[in-house]
Amino acid sequence: MLAEAIAQAGLEFNLPCGGQGRCGRCKVVVEAGEIKRRSTIRLTSTELEQGYALACQTLAQSDLVIFIPPQEEIIVRKLPSERHTAETITLPMPCDWESNPSIRQFHLEIPLPSLADNTTDFERLKRELNRQHEMGQLNASLPVIRRLARTLRDANWDVTAVLEMHNWFFEKGPPRLLDLLPGNERDHLYAVAIDIGTTSNVVYLVDLLSGKVVDTAAEYNQQISCGEDIISRIVYAKRPGGLEHLQRLVIQTLNGLIETLAERQGIAPTEIYKATVAGNTTMIHLFLGMWPEPIRLEPYIPTVNHPLPVQAAELGLHINPEATVDCLPGVGSYVGADITAGVLSSLMYQTEKLTLFIDVGTNGEIVLGNFDWLISCACSAGPAFEGAGVQSGMRATAGAIDEVWIHSQTHEPTYRVIGNERPRGICGSGMISLLAEMFLSGVIDKAGKINVNLDTPRTRIGEHGPEYVIAWKEETHDQRQDIVITQADIANLLRAKAAIYAGFSVLTRSVGLELAEVEQVLIGGAFGKYIDIEKAIQIGLLPDMPWDRFQYLGNTSALGAYIALLCPDMRRELNHIARRMTYLELSADNTFYDEFTKALFLPHTDLSAFPSVARLLK
Amino acid sequence: MLAEAIAQAGLEFNLPCGGQGRCGRCKVVVEAGEIKRRSTIRLTSTELEQGYALACQTLAQSDLVIFIPPQEEIIVRKLPSERHTAETITLPMPCDWESNPSIRQFHLEIPLPSLADNTTDFERLKRELNRQHEMGQLNASLPVIRRLARTLRDANWDVTAVLEMHNWFFEKGPPRLLDLLPGNERDHLYAVAIDIGTTSNVVYLVDLLSGKVVDTAAEYNQQISCGEDIISRIVYAKRPGGLEHLQRLVIQTLNGLIETLAERQGIAPTEIYKATVAGNTTMIHLFLGMWPEPIRLEPYIPTVNHPLPVQAAELGLHINPEATVDCLPGVGSYVGADITAGVLSSLMYQTEKLTLFIDVGTNGEIVLGNFDWLISCACSAGPAFEGAGVQSGMRATAGAIDEVWIHSQTHEPTYRVIGNERPRGICGSGMISLLAEMFLSGVIDKAGKINVNLDTPRTRIGEHGPEYVIAWKEETHDQRQDIVITQADIANLLRAKAAIYAGFSVLTRSVGLELAEVEQVLIGGAFGKYIDIEKAIQIGLLPDMPWDRFQYLGNTSALGAYIALLCPDMRRELNHIARRMTYLELSADNTFYDEFTKALFLPHTDLSAFPSVARLLK
Repeated sequence: MLAEAIAQAGLEFNLPCGGQGRCGRCKVVVEAGEIKRRSTIRLTSTELEQGYALACQTLAQSDLVIFIPPQEEIIVRKLPSERHTAETITLPMPCDWESNPSIRQFHLEIPLPSLADNTTDFERLKRELNRQHEMGQLNASLPVIRRLARTLRDANWDVTAVLEMHNWFFEKGPPRLLDLLPGNERDHLYAVAIDIGTTSNVVYLVDLLSGKVVDTAAEYNQQISCGEDIISRIVYAKRPGGLEHLQRLVIQTLNGLIETLAERQGIAPTEIYKATVAGNTTMIHLFLGMWPEPIRLEPYIPTVNHPLPVQAAELGLHINPEATVDCLPGVGSYVGADITAGVLSSLMYQTEKLTLFIDVGTNGEIVLGNFDWLISCACSAGPAFEGAGVQSGMRATAGAIDEVWIHSQTHEPTYRVIGNERPRGICGSGMISLLAEMFLSGVIDKAGKINVNLDTPRTRIGEHGPEYVIAWKEETHDQRQDIVITQADIANLLRAKAAIYAGFSVLTRSVGLELAEVEQVLIGGAFGKYIDIEKAIQIGLLPDMPWDRFQYLGNTSALGAYIALLCPDMRRELNHIARRMTYLELSADNTFYDEFTKALFLPHTDLSAFPSVARLLK
Repeated sequence: MLAEAIAQAGLEFNLPCGGQGRCGRCKVVVEAGEIKRRSTIRLTSTELEQGYALACQTLAQSDLVIFIPPQEEIIVRKLPSERHTAETITLPMPCDWESNPSIRQFHLEIPLPSLADNTTDFERLKRELNRQHEMGQLNASLPVIRRLARTLRDANWDVTAVLEMHNWFFEKGPPRLLDLLPGNERDHLYAVAIDIGTTSNVVYLVDLLSGKVVDTAAEYNQQISCGEDIISRIVYAKRPGGLEHLQRLVIQTLNGLIETLAERQGIAPTEIYKATVAGNTTMIHLFLGMWPEPIRLEPYIPTVNHPLPVQAAELGLHINPEATVDCLPGVGSYVGADITAGVLSSLMYQTEKLTLFIDVGTNGEIVLGNFDWLISCACSAGPAFEGAGVQSGMRATAGAIDEVWIHSQTHEPTYRVIGNERPRGICGSGMISLLAEMFLSGVIDKAGKINVNLDTPRTRIGEHGPEYVIAWKEETHDQRQDIVITQADIANLLRAKAAIYAGFSVLTRSVGLELAEVEQVLIGGAFGKYIDIEKAIQIGLLPDMPWDRFQYLGNTSALGAYIALLCPDMRRELNHIARRMTYLELSADNTFYDEFTKALFLPHTDLSAFPSVARLLK
């Protein structure tokens, strides 16, 4: 292997996975000579054309000239707030968003009143809208009406009216006057698409005239201080004033993001005339200040799946106080608007292909179906992959180990840390990677049991039983204790992955299909983007199928909110999607426990369902 | 005359008007004997049958047996708050208010949710409404939605939904959930009809199930502390915070009345589910917090004539926060919802008779027309008849002289005081009475000039020129100064009455008619009820026509608000009335000044238009 030749040449060269051809980090460029590649994992076709090869998977068949690119030891991964850039966000489908927009502006030069023409201000405004744009009745709230007389006179009757033409609830009602601005039409008409994640909140600033996402911002949900996962938030809401506090925290988070965006773009928040909001059902309940307790208790009933539009002022959201805040529809307590938005933006509701859509966050939500039918379920995976319930677990933020390779002989780990600093803990994608590496390198067996008899100080009996040391305390950020994964952590992670995989199994079986028949697997959610599919298959979190059937879609929830914001047709489509999505309550399905138990093993009791892993184990 | 015979008999007997047969206060009962009545003024047909006669207008034609009833010296007149009793308020027209009510309650026994039937709370409620009452979409505000989950569970799914089925603005929209109450339907469904007068505010508590006015309450508008008339209120609104203060004051007044009614009826204010509000355009603007300044300035433009329905919570009105507050439509800055409500409740919009409707309050508003057409104008009469701009003027409250008789020989006055106490001043009806008496007894001439050469200490040159003493200071409440009417007061009153009469003239002429063609004169407004028609004709305030053409209607504004509250059809009718009422701007009419000048005399320059007064003067 080239790797050995490089070592013989005395060059420092790392094989993070121990030369198993798994990590793809021993890339070299063969500039001259003949080689034979045994594996090209993680190499793109462009790289292959350019002569890239994996040093641990390539045999020399002649003398060679090799270029060794600098190996990254620590890779800088950006914080969530900078992960999505506005330029990369585009509508995934053709959509006629211009012909029937929900928000419009109309420039009006209104004839001055006189004794002979003494129509009221409001009727005069309506008359002019009607003359110029054939509009009949007009709705307006009291605060807007209160400002009317002064604005018209201050602007010398030369004004631009900003109107909400319709929303999904008032399809046929009269337009609503949101604002009256002095002078001519504006070049931009802003709105925001919001994704309220249990962990991260994302706001896209959209220009409804160009249809483009102008800017984005993301930040951790301040509710985290009241609990990491939705169940702990619901429990927190039971305290006196707890619900109000949680509502205030998410509004504060969003207002901060909106302020950031407004400042960066040099606009006033009151120029933002609409908002769509995606999020799981608990997040939507807390955002609207609805009592979440029945979501947690059997039979798990939300107050509402299709929240009625409310006005920004009612929520304290700092955009235009008249702006409609449209919380997107969910399916049930555990399949929320984040998932329907994902189904919309993934286009799975249009395709003929049998599609599995998954969004692994604090919970794992799964949708199976196509243009014809859609069925969904939620797996209470628990927050293990989010970093909670794992001793050294943390969220995917600076200092988190997000990928691990373990040398198959020495069992020494190599890891990658987010944010160019010393490790503080390990995040979800790091745990998937770690589990897979431990399994394949024999640190744990198929039941997840740590082999403490290995000839390495990395496995040991710690305070809480068997554990594996990922980083010695000297390497860590605060140099105070080793970063380890314990037997209990592993059990938690196995339960989480088993719940998700059991979800896949039960969901497909429930419609008389097999997992293998799934033609594509679409992965949404912020977390999904960083799952290593290969390793997720190796631990049995994802079904074992050709990698080209998997596709990362990024933040499908925020994207869905953006689509629904821009296109009224798509907003209506979203209601149809939510209504036609069947919800399978796993806790009511008596095959679930069986499937869950089978999936508690690595990768699974039934190894025949994981042929690629079976090959690897041989 | 009998009066002389009584005097000869040595009995104490007052002739308040000096024996001119004007006051009707010298009634006696002729128990035996022959008489000849020269006038039967103020005697009802019943009284005539019972033998009543006016001592000053009746000749003895034989020996007589006469019974002299006790003469009232001071008549107790109730305060406004007690003037209208709920029992006397009835719908003036047949109206099918039961078939399509705006507010309805529905008792629902909702099936409990389960894993198999896990529809959301809101959908479950809608489903049950739909099953039992064939209702489709349902609207609800965020605060109601927020309470939904808890109310349903606390009530064990046995609830009564209170729904607003429609309002004039959302005729065809979905019903709106106002409240969800535990248990069965209520026996009463309350709402309030409100009349916001510049001076007095009135609230009728209505039971929408029986259709009846259950109770009423009235109180002075607390805004009085910021100005007596609408112009001074508009000027006050220009101060920093002035508009907000005025809005708060009227809301405080109404909340006090609502609290009184609720306490008296043993209900919670939140059980009141709707409000209609009548009032002049300025009062409506101040109630809603709309900038009133353009009402005062040419070309006199209100913000809105048909205010959109708002919710009680937006205004701080202490009824159910979800209740729609429906401000009734007006015609223009000076013909407001009080007048359209008056036209509705007077039924003049239905009659074939040529009708003149007048509402004399701080301003005088006049409507002329019938079922076919309606034209209106407003006379800026000024607040003289309301007691402002008159030295001893006051509102019609305790201590106000409200009727005066002047002896034709001695020029000594007799007066009646409201509230069984010593006089403090003189109110509007008192001033009309006083002017007429002064004119007919020669204290003033037809130009209103006081004759200071009369042989009486009552006329004199005071500090501010000629004046007439109505009550010596010893007779008054505080015994500090004489109650007088000055030459300047008279000039003010003449301008006020001239403005109103000129309004009648110009309005009738503008449609090519003569005042004499008017078939009925309907007098609305709280003040109108206390105008003595005879005396109002004598001073030329009302046109001279047979008294049976005049009809007092009481508080037509509050009555209209009650009708519009109860009957959706009538509420729609009110919009039609407001839209088809033409508004004649008197200040833009160039015949107005002529007519005004002619009417500055007593009763009028053209005495032929006042034949009854001409006869009296002879």
